[in-house]
This record gives sequence, C-alpha cells and structure tokens, in this order.
Amino acid sequence: MAMPSPSPEIFASPDSNAQTVQDPGESALIERLRDWLGEVSPPAPAGMGDDCSVLDVPLGKKQLLTTDSVTYGQHFDNAVSPANAGRKLIKRNLSDIAAMGGEPGPALLNLLMAPNLSIRWLEAFIGGVRESCERYGVRIVGGDVSQLDRDQFSAALTLVGFSDHAPALRKGANVGDWVYVTGTLGGSILEKHYDFSPRLAEGRWLARQDILTAMMDLTDGLGKDLAALLPHDGSAEIELARLPISESAEVCSQKDGKSAEDHAFCDGEDYELLFTVKGESDRETLESSWRSEFPELELNRIGRITPRHTAGRYIDAASKEALPWSSGFEHFKDR
Amino acid sequence: MAMPSPSPEIFASPDSNAQTVQDPGESALIERLRDWLGEVSPPAPAGMGDDCSVLDVPLGKKQLLTTDSVTYGQHFDNAVSPANAGRKLIKRNLSDIAAMGGEPGPALLNLLMAPNLSIRWLEAFIGGVRESCERYGVRIVGGDVSQLDRDQFSAALTLVGFSDHAPALRKGANVGDWVYVTGTLGGSILEKHYDFSPRLAEGRWLARQDILTAMMDLTDGLGKDLAALLPHDGSAEIELARLPISESAEVCSQKDGKSAEDHAFCDGEDYELLFTVKGESDRETLESSWRSEFPELELNRIGRITPRHTAGRYIDAASKEALPWSSGFEHFKDR
Repeated sequence: MAMPSPSPEIFASPDSNAQTVQDPGESALIERLRDWLGEVSPPAPAGMGDDCSVLDVPLGKKQLLTTDSVTYGQHFDNAVSPANAGRKLIKRNLSDIAAMGGEPGPALLNLLMAPNLSIRWLEAFIGGVRESCERYGVRIVGGDVSQLDRDQFSAALTLVGFSDHAPALRKGANVGDWVYVTGTLGGSILEKHYDFSPRLAEGRWLARQDILTAMMDLTDGLGKDLAALLPHDGSAEIELARLPISESAEVCSQKDGKSAEDHAFCDGEDYELLFTVKGESDRETLESSWRSEFPELELNRIGRITPRHTAGRYIDAASKEALPWSSGFEHFKDR
Repeated sequence: MAMPSPSPEIFASPDSNAQTVQDPGESALIERLRDWLGEVSPPAPAGMGDDCSVLDVPLGKKQLLTTDSVTYGQHFDNAVSPANAGRKLIKRNLSDIAAMGGEPGPALLNLLMAPNLSIRWLEAFIGGVRESCERYGVRIVGGDVSQLDRDQFSAALTLVGFSDHAPALRKGANVGDWVYVTGTLGGSILEKHYDFSPRLAEGRWLARQDILTAMMDLTDGLGKDLAALLPHDGSAEIELARLPISESAEVCSQKDGKSAEDHAFCDGEDYELLFTVKGESDRETLESSWRSEFPELELNRIGRITPRHTAGRYIDAASKEALPWSSGFEHFKDR
C-alpha cells in the first residue's frame, strides 16, 4: 500500500475548524472513547479505570495471547472507511485466535494519534471496533493513548483467547501430510483485506480433528506463509489446478499482467486457514464432514509435503519443477 | 516534553549511510529482535513464532492485564539513552502491576518505527528492554512491528500479571481514611521519569495489609491522580509539611520559580505508590513494619480523607483553604 496523501476527512488541515483529538484533552478523550465503546467497555476492575484490569481465567482452559495493529498508510488508506479500519483491527487479531483453534477473550487497545486526527473519524473508527467486538464477544478491558506527529494514526490490539483443547500449532507437519486451504486466495487489496470473516468456528472445528498436524492463518501470502508449516526436511508439491484462485486475483491479473497464480501465492491478507493433515488420514471423510459443517466455505487440498527437493521448497506437482513464488508481503521493504 | 528535533543518532538523515530498520526487511528484522532479546524471548508456542503464544495460567491466581507505551518526543527525548528508553517501557508497565499488588508475567511488544530508524539505536533500545525483563522476570512472548512516517518511534507493551490475593483497587477508600505515599515527589523530568524502580515488592506487601483500602501508582502527578482514589463524598486534607518533596522538585523550583509544592503535586511520572488505609487503623504499627521491611524507601502520611468540602477536593489541613493543584499532566493538551 503506497503512503497516501492525508485525507482531510481523517486529519484536519491547519486552517480547518474540524474538531480534533487535541481539543478535549486526554481525560475527556478517554471518557469519550469509553462512551463510544458502550457495553464493550465493562467497568473496572474487569475493565478500564484502574491500573490493571482483573481477568477471570476459566478453569481448565489454555490461554492464548496475540497482538496486531492497523496503521494508516500501511494497513488501510483513504479508500477504507473508518468503521472498516476499526473492524479490521479486531478481525486481524481474531484470525490469529482462529488459527490456534481458540475462542476470543478480552482485549486491550493502544491508540497512537496525531494531534490533528479528526474526532469524527475516530468516533467512526471506534464504532467499527465496537461492532466487531459485539459480534464476536470481545470486551475492551484496558488501553492507552499516545501522541504521534501530524497525519499519523496507528491502533494496536492485544487479544486474549482461550482454548479447551490443545492449541493448533504451526509446527507439527511431516513429510507425507496433505496441505489444505480454506476459501479463495489473492487480490485482497480490492476489498478482502478489510472485508473478511475470521475463521473462528472453522479453526475450532479443525483443531479438534485428530488428523490435523499444523495450522496457521494466511496473512503474508501463501508463498511466504507456507514455509512456516513445512518441516525442515520437507518441500511442498502444489497441484496448481487445485489452487483456489479468487475472482479478485483474476481481476488484479487482468489489470497488472501478473498471473492469477502469482496473485494467489504472493498477495497478503487472505485471512484464510492453511493447515496440514496426516498423510494416512481419511481425506474423503474430512472433506465431506467439512461440507456438512461449513457448506458455504470451500476447502481445497492444494498439495502434499514431500521429502525436500533440491529444486526448491515449492514444487509444481505436475512438472516437478520449482515454483517461483516463494515470497510474500514484507513491511519495511520496497516501499 | 516539547517535540525534539530528530537526532541523527536515532533517525538517519536521507544522505546518511547508517543502517536503518528498512535495510534487513521485516522477517530478518524480527529475527534480529529475537536475537537481541536472547533468553527473554522463549521459543514458540510459549513465545514468538506462532499465531498466538500459549500461556500457562497458574492455578488459583488472579490475572492482571495492563498496557503502556513509550513514544519518542512524548515519553523520552534525545537526552534519554536508548537503553533507558527501553527500560522505561518495561518499568512503566511493571509500576501498574505493582499498584495492584501483583507479580509480573509475560508481555507482548508492539514496535512502531519510521523506516529511517537506526538499527544501532534499536538494538540498544531492545538491550534496555532485555535488561529490565531479566531483572524483573518478564518474558516477551509475542509482538508486532509496524511502520510509521519518518522520524517517529513508539513502542507499546502489554503486560500480564498475577496475584495470589485480591488485587488492590483504586476504589475502596472512605471518609476518615489516611493517605500515604512512598518515596518523594516532583521533578521527575530531570531523571526519575526513566530512572526509577517499580515498587513491586512494596505493592505486594501493601496489598496484603488488611487495613489497605485503595492503591494506585502516581503517573500523572499527585494533583491529578489523588482524585481517582477519593470517594464521591470526600475531599483530601493535605498536611503540606508532610509532603515528601524531592530534591529534583527543589531544583526545578529554583529554575522556573514555581513552588516546590507545585512541582510535587503537578509533575507527572513519579512512579510511586499512593494508597489509603482505614481511619481506625494502627498507623504506628504500619509505619514501623514498613521501616523494617523497606528501610531504604520513605513512607509518608500526607493527609486524610474528609467529608467533601465545598471549597474543593484538596484542602490545606492547616488553613482549611482549597489547594490550587488539582490538575496534572495531560497528553494532547497545551503542546
């Protein structure tokens, strides 16, 4: 995402009369944030208002912790509404909980804001945060505000999760395992990078399948992320014909001339689940159970882990030649 | 703190050859961060490297959650070494855990960095983070990196804490209770705002005293923070002669002509504990027990909660007139 020129809807220009976060002062601003969050912000000591929030830990569950941010110019630009940017913050973190097979718990919100950030824009952003929190049962129990230079905005969320069984980890796949992916891949820049559903129910269901060996969510693109699932001694043979290419990837391909496969492999922010199952597993039962549990979300077996090829980590299963798409989105690079 | 002009030690100028965080790329940068953190960064699934970290929750303890950040130009400037800025990040959060009477657990670190942030500076900052983590038994189990515009740096930490008894809350003080403060107040801008010790042992000890009714840490200044401890129907009568004024507050007073009391009330970032005990409590036993437990840290009874005065929330106990220092440090205001 190229750095946009700051929108006056988001950042007030010096001669504007628009209300900014500097106007109310910190204490009154925090009061407003709590008002905007409504019932998503419980009273202290469970929620904001004391030095720490005090958490009830369910007995016998595993606890998960994750953190992710949305930054203006990096994770969203002027084309994304403030509510969608707020929803994206919550859903990015939920996707990490989904990837472990967990259920969401409480969260803490850090806001880093330019003094010229529009109050109206911030209210709409928090409205999106609240809506996603209500939908997925997340409560904002703490947070912090901090000041950045003009025309800057970033929000970080730290989310607690719980799991009543062993969390699904990235490490665990072996040579011979099958590789699956949910949904379709590529072209998220058109819309899906903010308009997606974290695969929480799917992740919980998958984590309970004995045949599952490893799982993660796709955030940096299949080409970069799949390497994290591969065992040290393995490569992945990909059946390109089974690759679920999204319509958006096709649209992007027509626009920029790169292949749709390239977009499916290298675009980031799919927020789908990538997982492996044991090589000897009953794939037909898995796939038919999936169809009855999640009839609206496609599941595709895209390849298999093989002993490591000298040609590369990703191999075309048909030609046995190396695939070129071994990278994905990198922040701080080529920008 | 006024916005400093960016130091070339921290942010590389466009014509500099200094290595910046943009050079290695995100994945390699994260590898380096983990190297710099050393044993403070445990392997996944307890630590970084999976979608979430998986936490062992001690049985029978209460869990605490807090988050706080350090931002360049706001919480530190060019006069603060990178290691001290890193230590400050950890200690600010530890001070919140101390204020509840808890012990520190794992933490997540969000770094927001300009592309021209110096790698050498970042390494020294993380060195300070690591040193404080080692000293206080904190492990960094997850995190996130995000990109800001030129000359900007912010780091947010979310810290888990545990408590084996009921946490000490801000709400709980009543009319008649005595008001105490640890250490000395004011003038933290000279040094203490980064060179302080979170009062962890003191907080744990205090939270176990049956006579304690409320506690918090002083971050925005006594004048702003004390209001959070006062019951709705109460004012605080302050014995000004008992106010522990720091040497730094005296130095600041000589420089700017404001009174030393003004500095003790209104300067932020003391990181001392402010607490109340029951009015009928045996204060002499409390104070002598304190002296034997913590002989090196002074404890002062600075006043008492009275029925609410019409004159104001803070009253001079000698003259019964209102004290003027009812505010403290506010971000986003008068900057």
